[in-house]
Amino acid sequence: MTPGLRPADFKISERSTALTALQEELEGIPCTTEPQQLSKLSIDWHTFSPVLSEKLAGKRADIVYFPTSEAEVIRIIQACVRHRIPLTPRGAGTGNYGQAVPLEGGVVLDITRMQSILWTKGGIMRVQPGVKLMAMEKEARKTGWEVRMAPSTFRTATVGGFVSGGFGGIGSITYGVLRERGNILGLQVVTMEAEPQILELRGEAVHQVSHAWGVNGIITEMEMPLGMAYPWAECIVVFDDFMQSARFCQRLGESDGIVKRMISLHAWPIPSYFVALKPYLPEGSHAALLLIAENSLEPLADLVKEWGGQITYTKPAAVCVGGTTSSTGKGITLMEYGYNHTTLHARTADPSLTYIDCLFPADPDLKAMEYLYRTLAEEMMIHIEYLRLNGKVTALGGQLVRYTSEARLREIMQIHRDQGVHVHDCHDFTLDSLQKKDASNRNQQLELKKRTDPLGLLNPGKLKAWMEWQAQQTGSPSM
Amino acid sequence: MTPGLRPADFKISERSTALTALQEELEGIPCTTEPQQLSKLSIDWHTFSPVLSEKLAGKRADIVYFPTSEAEVIRIIQACVRHRIPLTPRGAGTGNYGQAVPLEGGVVLDITRMQSILWTKGGIMRVQPGVKLMAMEKEARKTGWEVRMAPSTFRTATVGGFVSGGFGGIGSITYGVLRERGNILGLQVVTMEAEPQILELRGEAVHQVSHAWGVNGIITEMEMPLGMAYPWAECIVVFDDFMQSARFCQRLGESDGIVKRMISLHAWPIPSYFVALKPYLPEGSHAALLLIAENSLEPLADLVKEWGGQITYTKPAAVCVGGTTSSTGKGITLMEYGYNHTTLHARTADPSLTYIDCLFPADPDLKAMEYLYRTLAEEMMIHIEYLRLNGKVTALGGQLVRYTSEARLREIMQIHRDQGVHVHDCHDFTLDSLQKKDASNRNQQLELKKRTDPLGLLNPGKLKAWMEWQAQQTGSPSM
Repeated sequence: MTPGLRPADFKISERSTALTALQEELEGIPCTTEPQQLSKLSIDWHTFSPVLSEKLAGKRADIVYFPTSEAEVIRIIQACVRHRIPLTPRGAGTGNYGQAVPLEGGVVLDITRMQSILWTKGGIMRVQPGVKLMAMEKEARKTGWEVRMAPSTFRTATVGGFVSGGFGGIGSITYGVLRERGNILGLQVVTMEAEPQILELRGEAVHQVSHAWGVNGIITEMEMPLGMAYPWAECIVVFDDFMQSARFCQRLGESDGIVKRMISLHAWPIPSYFVALKPYLPEGSHAALLLIAENSLEPLADLVKEWGGQITYTKPAAVCVGGTTSSTGKGITLMEYGYNHTTLHARTADPSLTYIDCLFPADPDLKAMEYLYRTLAEEMMIHIEYLRLNGKVTALGGQLVRYTSEARLREIMQIHRDQGVHVHDCHDFTLDSLQKKDASNRNQQLELKKRTDPLGLLNPGKLKAWMEWQAQQTGSPSM
Repeated sequence: MTPGLRPADFKISERSTALTALQEELEGIPCTTEPQQLSKLSIDWHTFSPVLSEKLAGKRADIVYFPTSEAEVIRIIQACVRHRIPLTPRGAGTGNYGQAVPLEGGVVLDITRMQSILWTKGGIMRVQPGVKLMAMEKEARKTGWEVRMAPSTFRTATVGGFVSGGFGGIGSITYGVLRERGNILGLQVVTMEAEPQILELRGEAVHQVSHAWGVNGIITEMEMPLGMAYPWAECIVVFDDFMQSARFCQRLGESDGIVKRMISLHAWPIPSYFVALKPYLPEGSHAALLLIAENSLEPLADLVKEWGGQITYTKPAAVCVGGTTSSTGKGITLMEYGYNHTTLHARTADPSLTYIDCLFPADPDLKAMEYLYRTLAEEMMIHIEYLRLNGKVTALGGQLVRYTSEARLREIMQIHRDQGVHVHDCHDFTLDSLQKKDASNRNQQLELKKRTDPLGLLNPGKLKAWMEWQAQQTGSPSM
């Protein structure tokens, strides 16, 4: 050790030397070290959470690479392994758990230039992970298919990022969530080793890597099943009574004779945040935003009437077919008002808002929902996406919460749990907290990581189970 | 009254005079009075039931008309009303409740020549009621659509007959049953009056006439929603253990990532009756017959493996697309082994078999099914069609029963009820018995009949509620 240097300095200096060497070895692969770019490409939409914003503040990559091929990914991996530099993969950064934040700096692997659609046949599309959902949809529609599900961020979100960090999306009301058998057919993954292996995971094995935030392998190819493309109309339905609107949405979800792609419900005042939709959202009304097959519009109108709602807006399907209208940048699509976009629009109007993620229990009387709606009216607004989960129409809550403190936020989460609502902790940056319910899946992720990332360089700090296991191995106390 | 003639003779003679007058007035509309034809066109597949066979024996039309247009239907109605002659509408006669049997003779209105497809647009097809389901499928596939659901008799069955007497069919595992909102968009109905009205029923009002066996109006046009056409592969999966096969089918039904059109389950020895499928049905094994979207075959294979089944037969989708293969008469389609065809094939091998119709309760442990499977093993074979009902995957039983007596058959039905199974009484020829559960629907049918068939000439004897109401009106004792 050079005299006068403290150990911490030495580590920095070591990293710096290593990075210099890595950069030389990776000559020719596009990259950036421009500070503003580094900052931008080291964050995601975890900024929705004041808790995560604070905890993840200042975490920044040292360098961001933009590979375009698997070969380049392999070169980057080899260099990182050689120099013991952490590597955090990243899609478009529209996730909101901090999954793309490089906790220990190092390399961020931006996959957005891996945009090839490798092939499409028989309703299956094989792609590189950086393909945007909207590009997949456009390509699929050329042969009469469409993507089964997509996040509200489909315009920018990559399919790799969606599969690595998403749960479900627009389309899940028909096809269930990503985790559902058959919604991801295959994932090709490169391991984080001196001699990287290329694994083709298929069947249930894909879930060792899906929603694993890149902690146990870098996805380089993906095989996704498609759905037959419907002409989707978009509708806004408004209700005076919130519980009535929730019962309507549940019934609509369970009406299999009405084909649909999205049922997104927003308690007032959430609709007030949807500025561009203002003419269709009467003051004080709760709004359901729907994507409905054109040939189901008449039965939808009947159902709305029966439940005492009012259709204030209908955009015919013709405009939507052939990729979303919005692909040209023109027009509004309701797809950009549900899921994460709800929080985005709300926070644009009021940055003091945050959100919680939860699954309501199956209950025809919606007791938990009603209790929470009444009890937390002052500080919470209910936002629900309806989707199919294990064959049942389920309400996925994305409640907006007026943030006061982390303690109160956690109290609100606990109030949900006390009502039998399953809460995903979206204010913690570990996979473990988010997926508490699914310990077997976390174990699978851990087991794979032992094989694919023995040095623990992939997206470090995100899988607590790994850190605990490592502590056991070295005999040091677990964190 | 002519001396020497008894009242009964007089009635016959009156009917005969009336019929002669009717025939003269309907000159030009194709008809038959040829005895063999009359017999053939006065029955349906109620012969599956020894009870109904006995009760309905000898009931025969006096004349059968084959109108080709609504105008001809109206002429026939007017003549029947003028001469007080009963009129019983009939599709292809593949129903099995005796709904097409003219209990009081008179005119049978055979709609099979009303075969025009009026228009197809935006995933909706408007047709005359005599269009065969297979013809609709072929036409729909020209523009990338398919029929949402069809009976196993799709080759001959008319859409009018299906809607008038069917519950659900192949496709109901995705779209729910006919009764589900949105699966019938409109029905045009001609009333049984001296001046027939033409009613266009839409929305929930269609169910006043759907599954009403023509007791309250003659359907002359129908507007049916379509589904996007999938390339369907066909598979046979076999299991050693029946309960395991039933759990597999339920799971498959609830796997929304696997797109499917049919899940038809047959306890051994039912598979032994499927002669043409013999090579794929090992002795003693229980068989699930499946229609699965081609891009779901891989996840299906995984699921089968996980549940310990074995795929013995796969027919790729390419063969099935563009209308069913079988449209050319070549090849086998599994669609002709489920639903009513199961009973048909079984009875071909063993005419002593009959069946019962039931809905199993939602129960993840399948207790009722297991109890019945074990308890009635000697005299009953379980056959299940899985379909969506009110948004939930439900097991529709079409059990085959070794018939000994009506009393024992009714005991078996009661044993089902005791287990919480809902039994449709398919051994009674009244709508009321079959639809016991849905009294509100029966009332709607009755209310419509009061307006549309004041003389009670339409398919007489099938709606008990009507007969009771009539008895009340005239003060005579109800039947």
